[in-house]
Formats: sequence, structure tokens, C-alpha cells
Amino acid sequence: MKKSVYLDHAATTNTKKEVLDEMLPYFVEEYGNPSSIHSYGRQAKKAIDKAREKVARALNARFEEIFFTGGGTEADNWAIKGVALANQNKGKHIITSAIEHHAVLFTCEYLEKRGFEVTYLPVDSYGLVDPKEVEKAIRPDTSLISIMFANNEIGTIQPIKEIGKIAKEKGVYFHTDAVQAIGQVDIDVNDMNIDLLSLSGHKIYGPKGIGALYVRKGTRLTPLLHGGTQERNRRAGTENIPGIIGLGKAVEIAYENMEKNNQHLLRLRDRLIEGIMERIEDVTLNGHPTSRLPGNVNMSFRYIEGESLLLSLDMKGIAASSGSACTSGSLDPSHVLLAIGLSHETAHGSLRMTLGDDNTDEDIDYVLETLPPIVKRLREMSPLFVQEKGGYQYV
Amino acid sequence: MKKSVYLDHAATTNTKKEVLDEMLPYFVEEYGNPSSIHSYGRQAKKAIDKAREKVARALNARFEEIFFTGGGTEADNWAIKGVALANQNKGKHIITSAIEHHAVLFTCEYLEKRGFEVTYLPVDSYGLVDPKEVEKAIRPDTSLISIMFANNEIGTIQPIKEIGKIAKEKGVYFHTDAVQAIGQVDIDVNDMNIDLLSLSGHKIYGPKGIGALYVRKGTRLTPLLHGGTQERNRRAGTENIPGIIGLGKAVEIAYENMEKNNQHLLRLRDRLIEGIMERIEDVTLNGHPTSRLPGNVNMSFRYIEGESLLLSLDMKGIAASSGSACTSGSLDPSHVLLAIGLSHETAHGSLRMTLGDDNTDEDIDYVLETLPPIVKRLREMSPLFVQEKGGYQYV
Repeated sequence: MKKSVYLDHAATTNTKKEVLDEMLPYFVEEYGNPSSIHSYGRQAKKAIDKAREKVARALNARFEEIFFTGGGTEADNWAIKGVALANQNKGKHIITSAIEHHAVLFTCEYLEKRGFEVTYLPVDSYGLVDPKEVEKAIRPDTSLISIMFANNEIGTIQPIKEIGKIAKEKGVYFHTDAVQAIGQVDIDVNDMNIDLLSLSGHKIYGPKGIGALYVRKGTRLTPLLHGGTQERNRRAGTENIPGIIGLGKAVEIAYENMEKNNQHLLRLRDRLIEGIMERIEDVTLNGHPTSRLPGNVNMSFRYIEGESLLLSLDMKGIAASSGSACTSGSLDPSHVLLAIGLSHETAHGSLRMTLGDDNTDEDIDYVLETLPPIVKRLREMSPLFVQEKGGYQYV
Repeated sequence: MKKSVYLDHAATTNTKKEVLDEMLPYFVEEYGNPSSIHSYGRQAKKAIDKAREKVARALNARFEEIFFTGGGTEADNWAIKGVALANQNKGKHIITSAIEHHAVLFTCEYLEKRGFEVTYLPVDSYGLVDPKEVEKAIRPDTSLISIMFANNEIGTIQPIKEIGKIAKEKGVYFHTDAVQAIGQVDIDVNDMNIDLLSLSGHKIYGPKGIGALYVRKGTRLTPLLHGGTQERNRRAGTENIPGIIGLGKAVEIAYENMEKNNQHLLRLRDRLIEGIMERIEDVTLNGHPTSRLPGNVNMSFRYIEGESLLLSLDMKGIAASSGSACTSGSLDPSHVLLAIGLSHETAHGSLRMTLGDDNTDEDIDYVLETLPPIVKRLREMSPLFVQEKGGYQYV
């Protein structure tokens, strides 16, 4: 049987069986619309309230500050457009970073076309935003700072607490896209002074098509979806009950087991990084060495194309990524890798492997055994490699 | 055992077991992200393409004209804001009707606050929009006509083909909210000249949290959700694979069985309407008698409050609605019932019962046996009834 190793958990995860089991009754049997005033409706309402409580608890937020959305992208779009539109009396300036997910960047670009001004802060070679730069960028007309909690490509975790402190002092709303961080990092929206936070189900072993936006009480926010009175009249549309229940359960499981899971991920991650470094030359780790998501490995292999590497790995049953799944199909190099200072060529030769709870030491062994000969073969076919190195002379 | 009769299928339906069965493998086992370039991703991509084909076939649309959304509300918001924003060079005037779902009406109101002008066409006492009124309302700066296919409260089916013909002749985009019509009415977007059509999974025995927007090729449309390159770069966000597969299956089943189901619904519906008319005085049917969804019953019971009626029915295990589920919790009378000319008082005394495939003749018997004594009791407590009628003197 062909070995199958999934190392693309940052793109999406499987839904855990315990999560699916909690969702199942809400498809065929308990199918009421929570807005209905009959017993079917009341039961559905009770179930989503329980899930809301779980999400709130994980973030140290209040029950009524959690709003369910159709996913992380909707949460990001809502947070940014919602704050921007509702606070135009204050001003039309937004601060974000150059390495945000496209759900943030393209939403900012959309607003730029509609008269808003956006400052895209640079990052250092590890992908870190400097809180001092955030402070310097704040103007009297700044309504929002949006800085992601942890990067989806290189795993770098930002100094969120420091940024939150500055935002609070300056009276500017602070949004963070925590889609990749949730369940792998401790998050306390009060201690960190976060006003809005996006999260998604399918990155933490929950279902796809569901997410949430935490909105601090009192935040001025225009709805993104207009219609029915769902979600305290802020997000219209019949609630995705099974999805919401799955998200609640996934968040709960993630935080209950975080310490144990992170130890496991860290150990495998460091074995993988060190193993590759030992076996392959001309390879660099992208992202911060320690302020980094426990499951993230992102490396550049000089002289080769990430795309070819991916396809060769796929043929051996290893699923990885060259950047974020959301931009695959595009031939542009990753905006994140360019922002940390990589050349186009090096950025193109990058590989992201993101580990999950279900990965094992044997998975790592298999990758360490499979990857070096693939890199060797691809480099032998690379004109640049042959020119610079005169062919393959080492392992 | 307490009898349980669900008559709120317009609010939401159960997910059919066959639908759930098709979805199930895509939670725990086949969980790839369709944007990923590895075998997990490719399999997910293949699965959603199959579902897209099913939805396209049901509407006589092309495969590439179907875009999946997080539900009907998102599809409505996207269609209206998307066309309005993308076609401002033509003008900022939109035509809709007074009885649209709030996902359409409140989106229009939002646009009005942002400089757009909206004409809300009246309807006749059956809830019909007059195509001639549509034609008269078109101006050189009209970019969009949005008229729902069938009303969610009173079930009236609009003359969509006539309206589509006018829209085409005048070169104005035509959107229809078909959330309630889909699966109960034949829809052909080409024959009917529909440019955009919204639909939802959970009204047709599919899952909640999934919908679709049909967009005729060539339609100028701004995205609502910005971010990744999903859905041909028009709707960002990781695809809700199980939801999409469920929607595809639900649409397929609905159209395969439509004739048989509609016969069943029509027979039960007419038995229910006639049975109530025979047993209770001072009751009127709201909506069109024949151009009406096969499962819709909406009646006004003079002298009583729909809310009390609902609660009494619920105690007897009958789940119904006083208006749309999306506005319950609000004390305002239904905008639809007011638009067809009902007084506030009569509108408040209305009850919607929407039948589904799983309802039986025994369900109807039970309602016909349970409802009259409830109405009698409530009327006896009504000061207005006592004053006008001198108490209860008939059955």
C-alpha cells in the first residue's frame, strides 16, 4: 500500500470524529431553525448557544461577543469593511501588514478603491511586525489596525499583546486574523486588547464553511450580510447549526489538548527541520525560529521550483504546499516570502509542510527518506544548479 | 407519545438521509482543500465540480455560471451589492418589490444609505408584481431588477418569465431570489432570461450554511468576499465541501422527484386549506389561490394573535410560523401581509403552515382536529371578538 502523509494542515484539516459525532444529530433529526418559535427552533437555539459559550470561553470573551460566520474569509471581510464603514466619521485610514492573508489584503485593496487609505507595514526577515512601526503609523484618522496572529505560510507569531496595548492607548480598533493561531496559541482577547478576532473551523479539525468573529462589546461595526435578525441582528442568514456545533466542539477539543498536542507538534517539527538541514544543502528555514506555530515548517530549496517539488512529493504520497492553498494556481511567488526579503527565485523554491495531531514519527522518517533524493533529482535537472555547482557532488 | 407535526418547511427542512450520506465521507476521510495541488486537493475539487454540474443542470445553466456561497442571504447580498457596485457607470437605480425577503430589502436599504436609489414596486392583493409596473419603473440609470421567484410567506409565484423578457429587452440585469421556489418550480434561466439567481440548501432538504448564486456569463459583478482565488476568483474562502456536495445532491433529488412531490404537497395543502375553511369562520387565505407554492398555506384568523396561535399549536406538537422565521422575535407585523393590503390587526392574526415531503394525511387530520378548538379558545379570550360577535356561538 502506498504511504500517505498529509503535511498540509494549514490548508485544511480533517474533521475529527468526535466533532462530526456532535454535529450528526443536527442534520436529519434536530433540524429546527433557531429563529422559529416552536420546540424545533428552541432546541436549535439552545445548541448554538452552547457552542457560542465554548468559543467565548476559549478566547476569554463574553458569550454575546461571538458571532458565527461562513468561515474565516467572511470574518476577515466583515471585521475590516465593517469597522471601516462604521467609523468613517473618525477617518478612512487602516494599518495592516504586508504578510496578511489575502482575505485581509484584498479587502484592504477593495477599500482603497473606495477612498480609504491603507498602510502596509513591512516585516523583518523573520516575518515579524515591529510594534513601534505600528505606533508610528497611527494617525488621527486611523480607524483600524489589522495584524494577523500567526502567519499561514511561515508560521511566525506576531507580538499581538504589544500591538493591542498600543491600539488601546491610541483608541484605534484592533483586529487580528487568528485563523492559523487558534488552538495552537493561548489567546486572551482582554489581556491582549483585541477588539475583533477571526477564526475558522476547518483549520482546527472542525468542519469547513464555518467561522466566527469575536467583536468586543461596544465596537462600531456595519453588517456585511444584511437580512434576517440572526446573530443579534448583526449577521443575517439562517445559522449553520451543525457547522456551529462542530466549531464549538473543535475549539473545545483544541484548547483542552493544546499543551499535549503542541509538545507533539514541536517535537516532530524540529525533527523534520533538523533532519532536512542535515540531509540537504542550500536550504534555509523561512519564518521565526522560535516565535513560530508548533506545526509549521517552511523551507527554501535553492535551484529548484516548489511546484515540481510538490508534484514529486505528491507522487510519493506526501501532501504539502508551496505557499498558501488559497493562492495555489497562481504563478506569482508568495507575497509573504517576498516580504521577508527572499528573491523571486528563492521564494519559488519554497515548500510548506504543516504538521497535525495525527502525524507520527514514521511520517517524519518517510519524508526524511523521500525528500532528499527528490531534491537531488530536481537539482540535477536545474541549469542554474549545474552552472553554479557543476552538478551534484554531495549526498 | 406526543404527536409531532412539522409544518414549517419554509423556515428550514431536515437534511435528507441520502443527502447526508453523500456528505459524510468528506468530513473525516476526504478532507482535502480543493485549492491544494496534491491528491487530497484534487479529489475535493472533483467532488465540488460534480455538485456544481448538478446545480447547473437543474437551472439549465452552464457549469461555470454556478458559484457556491454560505447560504441564500449571502447570495442575495452578493447579487445585489455586486451588480450595483460594478455597474455604477450605468447608474445607481435598482427596482425591487415590497414583498422581497429581508436579505433583499435590507441590502437595498443599505445601498440607499450609500447613494443608490431603489424603487419598491407594490403588489396586488394576491402578492403579484405587475410586469407592466416593472417596465414603467425602468429608467436609463437602472442597473438591476430583483424580484423573488416565489414568496416565502404567502407562497405567491411571480411572473418571472415576463419580467425576465422585459429586463432583457431593456438591457437591465435581472436577479431573482429563488430560495423558496427551487425544487418546487421548473426553472430555466435561459428561457426566463434570468441573469442572477439565489438558492439555498436547507430549504430543499439539504444542509444549512450552503447556497449558490447563478451568474450569467458576462455579468459585471463585484465580489462580496475578497481573499483567495476560489470560485474562479469571484468568491473567496475555502469551499465548504460537504455542504456543496449536500446541496448538489439535494437539488438533484428535488428535481428528480418534483412532479411526484408536488402532487403530494398540493393534495395535502388543498385538504388543509379547505378543511380549515369548513371548520373555522372569519378566516382568509393569503396569497394567490393557484400561482402558489404547492406546500404553502398562509391564513389570517380574525380576532386573534398569530403568536398565541403558534404557542398553542406548539404545545400540541404542531410547528408552524406566523411569518418568516427570519423576522420572528420582531413584533412588527409582516411587511408582506401589509403589502397585500391586510390591516395590522389581520396581519397579526396570521399563520403560515408550510408542508414538506414527509407530511402525511394523518398530519392534516391532526391539524384539522387540533386547530379549531385552539382558535375557539383564543377568540373567547379576545375582547374584540366578544364585542363584535357577542361571544362564541358557532362551532
